[in-house]
Amino acid sequence: MKSKTMLALAAVTLTAGAAWAPLAAAKPPVANFAVTEAEVLAAQKAWGDALVQISKDFESGGRAKATATASAVLDAAYGYKHGPVLFKPTLTVAPQTFRHTQEGALAYFVGGNKAFPKDDGFALKGWRAVEVANDAIILEGDVAMTQGNVTLTNAKGEKTTVDKTWVYRKDDEGKLRIVVHHSSLPFSPK
Amino acid sequence: MKSKTMLALAAVTLTAGAAWAPLAAAKPPVANFAVTEAEVLAAQKAWGDALVQISKDFESGGRAKATATASAVLDAAYGYKHGPVLFKPTLTVAPQTFRHTQEGALAYFVGGNKAFPKDDGFALKGWRAVEVANDAIILEGDVAMTQGNVTLTNAKGEKTTVDKTWVYRKDDEGKLRIVVHHSSLPFSPK
Amino acid sequence: MKSKTMLALAAVTLTAGAAWAPLAAAKPPVANFAVTEAEVLAAQKAWGDALVQISKDFESGGRAKATATASAVLDAAYGYKHGPVLFKPTLTVAPQTFRHTQEGALAYFVGGNKAFPKDDGFALKGWRAVEVANDAIILEGDVAMTQGNVTLTNAKGEKTTVDKTWVYRKDDEGKLRIVVHHSSLPFSPK
Amino acid sequence: MKSKTMLALAAVTLTAGAAWAPLAAAKPPVANFAVTEAEVLAAQKAWGDALVQISKDFESGGRAKATATASAVLDAAYGYKHGPVLFKPTLTVAPQTFRHTQEGALAYFVGGNKAFPKDDGFALKGWRAVEVANDAIILEGDVAMTQGNVTLTNAKGEKTTVDKTWVYRKDDEGKLRIVVHHSSLPFSPK
Repeated sequence: MKSKTMLALAAVTLTAGAAWAPLAAAKPPVANFAVTEAEVLAAQKAWGDALVQISKDFESGGRAKATATASAVLDAAYGYKHGPVLFKPTLTVAPQTFRHTQEGALAYFVGGNKAFPKDDGFALKGWRAVEVANDAIILEGDVAMTQGNVTLTNAKGEKTTVDKTWVYRKDDEGKLRIVVHHSSLPFSPK
Repeated sequence: MKSKTMLALAAVTLTAGAAWAPLAAAKPPVANFAVTEAEVLAAQKAWGDALVQISKDFESGGRAKATATASAVLDAAYGYKHGPVLFKPTLTVAPQTFRHTQEGALAYFVGGNKAFPKDDGFALKGWRAVEVANDAIILEGDVAMTQGNVTLTNAKGEKTTVDKTWVYRKDDEGKLRIVVHHSSLPFSPK
Repeated sequence: MKSKTMLALAAVTLTAGAAWAPLAAAKPPVANFAVTEAEVLAAQKAWGDALVQISKDFESGGRAKATATASAVLDAAYGYKHGPVLFKPTLTVAPQTFRHTQEGALAYFVGGNKAFPKDDGFALKGWRAVEVANDAIILEGDVAMTQGNVTLTNAKGEKTTVDKTWVYRKDDEGKLRIVVHHSSLPFSPK
Repeated sequence: MKSKTMLALAAVTLTAGAAWAPLAAAKPPVANFAVTEAEVLAAQKAWGDALVQISKDFESGGRAKATATASAVLDAAYGYKHGPVLFKPTLTVAPQTFRHTQEGALAYFVGGNKAFPKDDGFALKGWRAVEVANDAIILEGDVAMTQGNVTLTNAKGEKTTVDKTWVYRKDDEGKLRIVVHHSSLPFSPK
């Protein structure tokens, strides 16, 4: 009879079980590859801080210093090392609107690249503060998406508000990387 | 000796193995929840077709008919049923720039909602053709992201080109749903 | 000069900005599709509770009642509706070791299916308690994975401990569904 | 009237559009982070090849050589660098059944670690061939899951068939890494 077999099995296992200690009550390790809201907010703040830093480095050390900083920022905060990034900066124009290579992104931030003649360096405009106001956030596993306003303040206290979408992907080291960035000036009805 | 034990085990298993048929050579079922490029391109085409359909339904049946169609399109193509959608339409203005609810999206497409007084119905503008030119695509498991230009042609043959980012999420039924949509007019330097 | 253009833009935006209220300080909605550790632990407990329920329903209402309960449990807790489930039950034998269809899983739990002649109903064995001791957990976005011991206690107080791996996938409604289930008796060296 | 505004917008954009070339017809870059079935099958084959290689290296160079090879295999094929791996080897016993650290996995494969006194080196048993027969496969974005039989053949031609579940995760470099591995001898009814 089958249920007898099962009980026998249970007994055997129980006996075997008696010979060894049960798993310790210690909490098992939990590896969490998902992006949290706190990580998203920290990544947004870091982006703003980096923009201000590039502006200040430009002022103290010229384009060379700003370029070094911007290049490091792009390496650290964007996903260009792992593939194309969907980047539509605020002020680019066709036919170079989209910057899916790191070279194109760097040109946008600091200018000075003849291959992108209309770029004069968005990050060099004397930025002093960046404020993010998210409209909504989606946490989708190792990907997180945000949309809302970002307000930039320059050294004269002038503010520019843009509509911004970011998508982040958490990499193997647990660091968020921007894989989508769409920024646009607010629509102005005529 | 341990290796003896192992070989004995192997022998036992072998004997047991002889008693039953190996797994059939038939191909095992493969469930694929990832988004493919073809699915993304089909979803983009469906979005354009839907926009044209809403325009035509408006012309043949007025706002009521267009609203019914648009509502069905939003139900089918966007992820509002599962949570907020990050939607920045082309022509919205603050403080109603972002439309993370289905009501706000519907108001944008067909107007007629007093809660969104500046919306006059983007989908009612006599659209006749929609063309998508992707700049780059990221397929990230059950999420896919695209960025590029979308060109809309109206009944007079006039064209409007916008910069567009879409993020799709594949749902349990295998259908792509838009969870991020950022659309903006190209930047025009003064 | 470009930076002039930029500052002009900033000014324009600032002016426009003055005309409308900033985004409210209200917390933006956050949609989280990732699986949390708490959800995993709750799903494990629910699995154990369901197994005990099937045993009790068998005792009070026979196989018919147990089958109805087990079928509902499989519908609710496993992912069979969305595709094959990788299920290796503890006591199945070749050539029916793996049960990637719901029919096969149901047969394992309650027996009575001539297509699975060796199944006598694992869930009908008088189970009274189920205890899970995870060794480690991986949270991988909308997928979560656990491995460890599960100890079952029957009405006589006899215990059976199995080695168990579960993978859960969060569905569109936010419910965890088992998509991988590998259970095995501990190895017993000869 | 609003639609007039819209048409004016369209006209402006059209004019602007005339000044620049449309996006080239070239295929946009597509980054695909999802796991394909072919990648899964290749990873399974690589696992088998590696097991055979460790056996051969043991025979030609002793445990030291086998250990070096096994360590490299674990680094390359498993996800230990990024967090715990859920690994239940075929022949481990409590209280060291589960090996969520690389040290524990290496001890299982090649033995010689006093911290794991019951391990005598599973990979050193003279393996000559490994055959995988999947029962079903789930591709879930950057995660893929398989379940089925794996049959190992040793130098004497003796075969051992195990029930095996693997879950792979695609890393940033596009390489599959085993994050779940549950292996068990087939259940033998008494």
